[in-house]
Amino acid sequence: PRSLPTMSSGPVPSREPPRYLSKAEAEAMEKELLEDYRFGRQQLIEIWGHACAMAVTKAFPLPSLPRKQPTVLVVCGPAQNGAIGLVCARHLRVFDYEPTIFYPKRSLDPLHRDFTTQCEKMDIPFLSYLPTEVQLINDAYNAVVDAVLGAEAELGEGRGPCAGILATLKHVRIPIVSLDVPSGWDVEAGSSGGISPDVLVSLMAPKQCARRFLGRQHFVAGRFVPYDVQKKFELNPPEYPGTECVVALSAPQ
Amino acid sequence: PRSLPTMSSGPVPSREPPRYLSKAEAEAMEKELLEDYRFGRQQLIEIWGHACAMAVTKAFPLPSLPRKQPTVLVVCGPAQNGAIGLVCARHLRVFDYEPTIFYPKRSLDPLHRDFTTQCEKMDIPFLSYLPTEVQLINDAYNAVVDAVLGAEAELGEGRGPCAGILATLKHVRIPIVSLDVPSGWDVEAGSSGGISPDVLVSLMAPKQCARRFLGRQHFVAGRFVPYDVQKKFELNPPEYPGTECVVALSAPQ
Repeated sequence: PRSLPTMSSGPVPSREPPRYLSKAEAEAMEKELLEDYRFGRQQLIEIWGHACAMAVTKAFPLPSLPRKQPTVLVVCGPAQNGAIGLVCARHLRVFDYEPTIFYPKRSLDPLHRDFTTQCEKMDIPFLSYLPTEVQLINDAYNAVVDAVLGAEAELGEGRGPCAGILATLKHVRIPIVSLDVPSGWDVEAGSSGGISPDVLVSLMAPKQCARRFLGRQHFVAGRFVPYDVQKKFELNPPEYPGTECVVALSAPQ
Repeated sequence: PRSLPTMSSGPVPSREPPRYLSKAEAEAMEKELLEDYRFGRQQLIEIWGHACAMAVTKAFPLPSLPRKQPTVLVVCGPAQNGAIGLVCARHLRVFDYEPTIFYPKRSLDPLHRDFTTQCEKMDIPFLSYLPTEVQLINDAYNAVVDAVLGAEAELGEGRGPCAGILATLKHVRIPIVSLDVPSGWDVEAGSSGGISPDVLVSLMAPKQCARRFLGRQHFVAGRFVPYDVQKKFELNPPEYPGTECVVALSAPQ
């Protein structure tokens, strides 16, 4: 050929408010990434966990931490959000934070087991129980990453065994970082007396419950989403500076 | 418990020259990550491909590119380096570059096939052949990513089918970015009249052949390597600023 192919320029980032996905849309998007685009679960969880750790470093930069040690408690549930939390903890360790993991209901999925092994072998401490005395948590950590329940959790379902954790997190006074859907919240309706995260990290794109988010910073980790998927779901993606995989929405919620 | 566990502070980065790994050491390290630490291949290839794309953005920032379009040719071989090249191309696309892939000998490994599908579905063009007229490549692209052969390639083995590509790359005048081990080089002895990359991206840690690298920039993408593995292989890891996954060695080679 006389000339080699080039591509048209990429997506035009939006400064408009994002689109908030329904539960069905979020599921359809994830299904499309997995089945049509052939992303692997291991790959997506790695991408998401890394992005969550990046959001934590932006919300709580090392020099800004109030405690002497850069401690972060990562609370992981039994499903996919828990696995993302494990990957987040591993990257936080690499970024010189001191994560501690509480992961009481371990998944039997080999994928989750491998992410657990990576953390264990990297000497990230695992708590055998969560202190019910909230002050112990407030004193020991700079922040809590809530990777307990996610978009998958139906009202009621899977929440039972985690009810104790949620009750504790509700009374914690250090900032909470929730992944995608704050634990105990409905994906669409949002909170009803549940936890109030300080930071929300939306994976792929914000879900409808994010409209009810009243915390300090809302990050979106959706840069990896292929342009055609962004277009199909009319995402209005934010502008990601440089090579950032995650960005704080500047517009008021 | 009265106090919750915290960790001792992390690895102390070295300003000394890195340790250069033998082929056996590089293999032993990768084996340890896969078998003991339970990293997944999909996960490692994602981490490495992302790091390679980050290195390309540092070596060739978008505003610095000589051509009107931010084109990059990514040449992928049949083995693991090729899969890393595919992931690199996908991230380059996300970073607003215009990658084009040449991937003549496609692996049957489902993992590689999935990485290929991701690129195809993201409308990254695949060349059906590499122009033998080198001037066409020089004119069309700002740089070439050499993901043809890696540390796995024995002298002779697997190089046959790629000999034509290597002959073309040897005469290309735009900068070449080689992943881990420049194609055609011996992991330990280095080059003997082969290609002369402008940029080298060492995965995990530099291999012995990197001592013979005379190009402009040598990046190391090893931040994800667990501290105990760094210590065991006496890596002298470079200092990674902030949350960077890749860093250029400042010391002269």
